[in-house]
Amino acid sequence: MKIRPIGIIHSPFKSKEDTPIQPPRSQATGKIEIFREYEEGLDDVDGFSHLILIYWFHKSQGYSLKVKPFLDTQLRGLFATRAPRRPNQIGLSVVRLLERKENILYVRGIDVIDGTPLLDIKPYVPEFEPEEEIKIGWLEGKIR
Amino acid sequence: MKIRPIGIIHSPFKSKEDTPIQPPRSQATGKIEIFREYEEGLDDVDGFSHLILIYWFHKSQGYSLKVKPFLDTQLRGLFATRAPRRPNQIGLSVVRLLERKENILYVRGIDVIDGTPLLDIKPYVPEFEPEEEIKIGWLEGKIR
Repeated sequence: MKIRPIGIIHSPFKSKEDTPIQPPRSQATGKIEIFREYEEGLDDVDGFSHLILIYWFHKSQGYSLKVKPFLDTQLRGLFATRAPRRPNQIGLSVVRLLERKENILYVRGIDVIDGTPLLDIKPYVPEFEPEEEIKIGWLEGKIR
Repeated sequence: MKIRPIGIIHSPFKSKEDTPIQPPRSQATGKIEIFREYEEGLDDVDGFSHLILIYWFHKSQGYSLKVKPFLDTQLRGLFATRAPRRPNQIGLSVVRLLERKENILYVRGIDVIDGTPLLDIKPYVPEFEPEEEIKIGWLEGKIR
């Protein structure tokens, strides 16, 4: 199964060390450039306040099944974290859409390294998210 | 960029026609089989009530930049929809985790076809989702 970039995420962050760990912690604005061949697919996105970006962690190589998350002091199972070194290096962030101009989306809350290859964009729809009580495992007490 | 399945999603839905359109509309339970080589990465997931599944729409081929969504009567830009025929056929669903047994996750709210290749699992964390007021574009009035 092959994937190909549909665009490039431009952000103020030049390295992993600069990069905030998740969008709500970031007020950074970024520019998402969609390649011209896919531009028509952006119609109607400007009705949505938030978009889900799916991208490739291009600065990571290989993976570890146990990782020590930034917010923790002990090793955790990879799939209980959002660490980038994964069997498929797919990342996911919800950002606020500020404006669309042709093939460019201006967004806020960006948390990826400049130059990150974009794989997909989906509309963020709260009604598609769970409504029940949510438990957040090892993160409890660390971000709440 | 190459991706590889890390497991298989087993669901009661044998065809697209059977399949509910998004997890909150589904009470279906499913079984997610993670290949044994990745099993260790599942440690700590059972602390989370909800998981994000990232998978491959294996029954789709090609893509369209304009699609008529199930919930609408007019054509919309692909990236303003969750239609499967995308340049990268990556799908995304949030499900409720019922139980983990070794390399198997039992989940509720499954909305994919049986046999769907799994690419990644991430913990669902409400604090990583937007808190502001959300606008949902063409879906307004259709699901709210």
